[in-house]
Amino acid sequence: MYVILVYDVGEKRVGKMLKLCRRYLHWIQNSVFEGEITEVKLRELEHGAKEIMRQEEDSVIIFKSRELRWLEKKIIGREKNELDNFL
Amino acid sequence: MYVILVYDVGEKRVGKMLKLCRRYLHWIQNSVFEGEITEVKLRELEHGAKEIMRQEEDSVIIFKSRELRWLEKKIIGREKNELDNFL
Repeated sequence: MYVILVYDVGEKRVGKMLKLCRRYLHWIQNSVFEGEITEVKLRELEHGAKEIMRQEEDSVIIFKSRELRWLEKKIIGREKNELDNFL
Repeated sequence: MYVILVYDVGEKRVGKMLKLCRRYLHWIQNSVFEGEITEVKLRELEHGAKEIMRQEEDSVIIFKSRELRWLEKKIIGREKNELDNFL
C-alpha cells in the first residue's frame, strides 16, 4: 500500500512526529511524507502518532492508495535534496 | 481528476498561495489542499503557483489520481471545521 501522510501538530510535538514518521516513510516536504507501507506498519505508525498528538489540537491526514501507479506526483520548484533525509 | 496539493513557501508568499489554491481546491490542513479538478484548471493553478513562488526556495507537490475512489483518506485528531473554508 502506498501512503501520503501530512501532519499539523503543535510546535512542541513537531520533532517527535517528524522522527516517528521518518521511521516508516520518506520525508518529501515540510510535514509531508510518502512511501510504501504494510497495513501492520501503518497501524503501528498511527498508534505512535496518537501517542504524540493532542487530539483536540493536532491533526494527521493519511491518504492511502492500493497501488503507487494510481498516483502521479509532480514537483514544482525546489526538490528536497537527498541529504535532507539524513538531517 | 482528483488531486492533493501541498505547498511549502516562504512566509511572505503564504497568503497569496493560500488564496490561489482556494480558488481551485478545498483546504484540508495547514498547507494541504485536495479536490476534483480538470486538466485545464490544474494547468491554470500550476501557472499561478509558479508566478507566486521562488523556484529556488519554495516547492509545491501535486499528487494526481485519475479517480477519487483509488484514494482513501483517514483523519486522526482534529478535523478542520467547515467554517475554516470561509476564513
